[in-house]
Amino acid sequence: MVDCIKLSTLASAVDAELEGDADFEVRKLASLAAAQSSDLSFVSQERYAKHLDQTKAGALILKREWAASFAGNKLIVADPYLAYAQASELFDKLSRLPQGIHASAVVADTAQLAASVAIGAQCVVGENVKLGENVRLYPGVVLGDNVEIGDDSLIHANVTLYHDVRLGERCMVHSGTVIGSDGFGFAPAQGRWNKIHQLGAVVIGNDVEIGSNTAIDRGAIEDTLIEDGVIIDNLVHIAHNVQIGAGSAIAGCVGIAGSATVGKRCTVAGAVAINGHITIADNSHFHGGTIVTKGNDEPGVFASAPPLQSVKKWRRNSVRYTQLDELSSRIKALEKQLESKVSDSKP
Amino acid sequence: MVDCIKLSTLASAVDAELEGDADFEVRKLASLAAAQSSDLSFVSQERYAKHLDQTKAGALILKREWAASFAGNKLIVADPYLAYAQASELFDKLSRLPQGIHASAVVADTAQLAASVAIGAQCVVGENVKLGENVRLYPGVVLGDNVEIGDDSLIHANVTLYHDVRLGERCMVHSGTVIGSDGFGFAPAQGRWNKIHQLGAVVIGNDVEIGSNTAIDRGAIEDTLIEDGVIIDNLVHIAHNVQIGAGSAIAGCVGIAGSATVGKRCTVAGAVAINGHITIADNSHFHGGTIVTKGNDEPGVFASAPPLQSVKKWRRNSVRYTQLDELSSRIKALEKQLESKVSDSKP
Amino acid sequence: MVDCIKLSTLASAVDAELEGDADFEVRKLASLAAAQSSDLSFVSQERYAKHLDQTKAGALILKREWAASFAGNKLIVADPYLAYAQASELFDKLSRLPQGIHASAVVADTAQLAASVAIGAQCVVGENVKLGENVRLYPGVVLGDNVEIGDDSLIHANVTLYHDVRLGERCMVHSGTVIGSDGFGFAPAQGRWNKIHQLGAVVIGNDVEIGSNTAIDRGAIEDTLIEDGVIIDNLVHIAHNVQIGAGSAIAGCVGIAGSATVGKRCTVAGAVAINGHITIADNSHFHGGTIVTKGNDEPGVFASAPPLQSVKKWRRNSVRYTQLDELSSRIKALEKQLESKVSDSKP
Repeated sequence: MVDCIKLSTLASAVDAELEGDADFEVRKLASLAAAQSSDLSFVSQERYAKHLDQTKAGALILKREWAASFAGNKLIVADPYLAYAQASELFDKLSRLPQGIHASAVVADTAQLAASVAIGAQCVVGENVKLGENVRLYPGVVLGDNVEIGDDSLIHANVTLYHDVRLGERCMVHSGTVIGSDGFGFAPAQGRWNKIHQLGAVVIGNDVEIGSNTAIDRGAIEDTLIEDGVIIDNLVHIAHNVQIGAGSAIAGCVGIAGSATVGKRCTVAGAVAINGHITIADNSHFHGGTIVTKGNDEPGVFASAPPLQSVKKWRRNSVRYTQLDELSSRIKALEKQLESKVSDSKP
Repeated sequence: MVDCIKLSTLASAVDAELEGDADFEVRKLASLAAAQSSDLSFVSQERYAKHLDQTKAGALILKREWAASFAGNKLIVADPYLAYAQASELFDKLSRLPQGIHASAVVADTAQLAASVAIGAQCVVGENVKLGENVRLYPGVVLGDNVEIGDDSLIHANVTLYHDVRLGERCMVHSGTVIGSDGFGFAPAQGRWNKIHQLGAVVIGNDVEIGSNTAIDRGAIEDTLIEDGVIIDNLVHIAHNVQIGAGSAIAGCVGIAGSATVGKRCTVAGAVAINGHITIADNSHFHGGTIVTKGNDEPGVFASAPPLQSVKKWRRNSVRYTQLDELSSRIKALEKQLESKVSDSKP
Repeated sequence: MVDCIKLSTLASAVDAELEGDADFEVRKLASLAAAQSSDLSFVSQERYAKHLDQTKAGALILKREWAASFAGNKLIVADPYLAYAQASELFDKLSRLPQGIHASAVVADTAQLAASVAIGAQCVVGENVKLGENVRLYPGVVLGDNVEIGDDSLIHANVTLYHDVRLGERCMVHSGTVIGSDGFGFAPAQGRWNKIHQLGAVVIGNDVEIGSNTAIDRGAIEDTLIEDGVIIDNLVHIAHNVQIGAGSAIAGCVGIAGSATVGKRCTVAGAVAINGHITIADNSHFHGGTIVTKGNDEPGVFASAPPLQSVKKWRRNSVRYTQLDELSSRIKALEKQLESKVSDSKP
């Protein structure tokens, strides 16, 4: 259980101007609708700001311009959504992980561990691994030889990092994720797939968060690269030699094929599939379910998902889809016919 | 190895009327085609009932109306497919897991375990975890602090449940699945993604089965909810604050984005992607590969997947797809032209 | 760190004709562009063969016909890409796994292990498991009862194989993958999903490689089958009773529904979804993102993904997609109208 947090503490944490009782004890964060008298909530959009007399929240994060609409305790900030994000950290109830190495963990003698690391039960740490200050490995994490993890990074339970994977500072990797497995590389010859051993590593920058059950393959020769500040969701497949530019966001169930380059500050919505060996410009955005067959030089917003229909309409339209080229020819023929009739009818 | 099971035992288990040798020893369940003289098979569809003279099965589960077509031992029931499901349990050869706590498991002193639990090798059980009667944790399972699991639930090997996750009674979770990882929530500000710590839990009802390598995120503020009797397949992504209504079935490779609500008794076929913040009515059904961009108020059957084509036809039709709006305008223009010609030709 | 490898050693390994310094010490494999004077690179395509004066590589794998274009050390072969694959094995820096059973592993007394096996830390090996010569289990692997693994197979960290799974020789399974979880089989009756216990196993041939976080379900009654030489990428879902023919390649994020049969030597590109209970002919090929709704008798190349468009064009064309059947009717009407006018105008 998290104990209550004083409003003054929260004001410092989110850099807010406090109006009301600085000693007010906040029990938890809550939505406007669900908040009770001991809860803190937040308003980030104009449309909610009109109904602040209806919330039971004991304290609110909001903008100066909305402050008059609420009678309770206030944390006044320029960006309430950001302040909510900052405040949320104080209420996080993540399982404790005591500093030091759990007795059941198996750590190679050659591993170089900062004094402040926490290594959970049943972890396995390979030869020459380097862990920075405050690195936390939750139970069941396996690190191959020569893995390096920067300060303040957190690896959740049952994650696997293969040999030579490098992860920056302040990263978080969620459970079940695998980083550094072999890329899908085979030389077809003599009627069989001949394995190309994957000699590159995976290099991940600072401030990267990776969701659960995601898979990031090591490079064939050179490294797979994830730059600073990238966020990746659950069940994402990142193939060998992919590069993802700084600040890009990759949502759940996305697949990125080998040697694709995604630019900086891109957003890739859920269930998108990106072809291999293509380059996507910085600041490109893809709607959910898009099949990205080719790259783009200029930023833009792209999509390909076909429209949702009742099965009855979908069946009929699907038949016509397979006839599209023929339908197009028939339109052209009609245009010609009509053209010639117009000529005919001229005197 | 499973020993043989007496037909009388099976008759009791599936509540069948037994015709034939009650002491007949069944070795295993088999399909009609593959069954041998010591095997039990079943008939659930009319079309198979016509060929019962061809099966070598020593015993059959079938309906009364088909009983005359088969000379061997019979288990007569109203719903043979249900009876087959019930009988299958007796033949399950799941790895043994002895009651008690394996010596290699690490269990917090504050955990509250029913006397009948079985905790496998290399498991890790966090602080204040509560496990009901007959809960089984297969090897390598990691439970964060405050996890609660109801009576008779079974967690397969290498599953991770984060802190505060609550799972009901008679649930089954398959290997590699992660429940309670952080939702994909970030406040974009100052040119970076600022993490919103995910404070909600995941609450799962009774009689829920979850496949392997699935990921279910905890809620941002309130909880992610999976109601009673929901079945979820492999590699499914369920984002934060999703709600899935009782009795719904979610097939493999489905992704459900944040705050989507799926009604009760829905079926979602494989590789469907469901958009965030939409509501899907009870009793809705989605064909495989559908991109569900919007919600629906009325039940129905929906689809969106484009038709399968040879690459040659697909290439041509795809070009026309990108010209659809233009083709539509040309049809309209033709209609107008023809309309005016008709007017012209009037005297 | 891998020590240097003599060029003569490499020549033997890839069965090449060596031209130059047989004692040349190769430090690593590198791409043509990145290679330094101590590196080995390779040329597999004509277009690169023209620019061999520009690489700094100390040695090259290439064809006889290109040999004159390069002044350095040469390994001359008929198939340079295959030779590169063969050479890559010598440079692989996979984490060491000493022969024997790690002290922290839990291995059942009834397990039958070849003398040369290596079982890593925190592994769990069930009753009656059989492991062949040189089988390697990396840390955290869990094998259920009666699992059988053939000679020279390698299982990476945190993989789970359920009871009765059989894996052939020279296979590799990457981290997080689950083999043998229950198929998604339920009998709907009495308003609930009644579990059908999955009694079949998974049988996997020789020389099969399976990527990370993939899930392969056991059969309902009979076995799920993966034949020799199949390669499967990351995050692939293979449902119960699927059969995959020898030599087929299944790329990342593919889902194959229950009882589908994929022929031999097929290639299934990324993010393809294959319907259940269909049969795909040998030598069939599917483009990325294809929804395979029906089987095929003849080999061919198939696709279904809709074209990538700017959101603006996509929105407009999507509306027309939902009107396709109507547009088709309007074309037909125009054709009839014009037909009748032609008749009218005949004298």
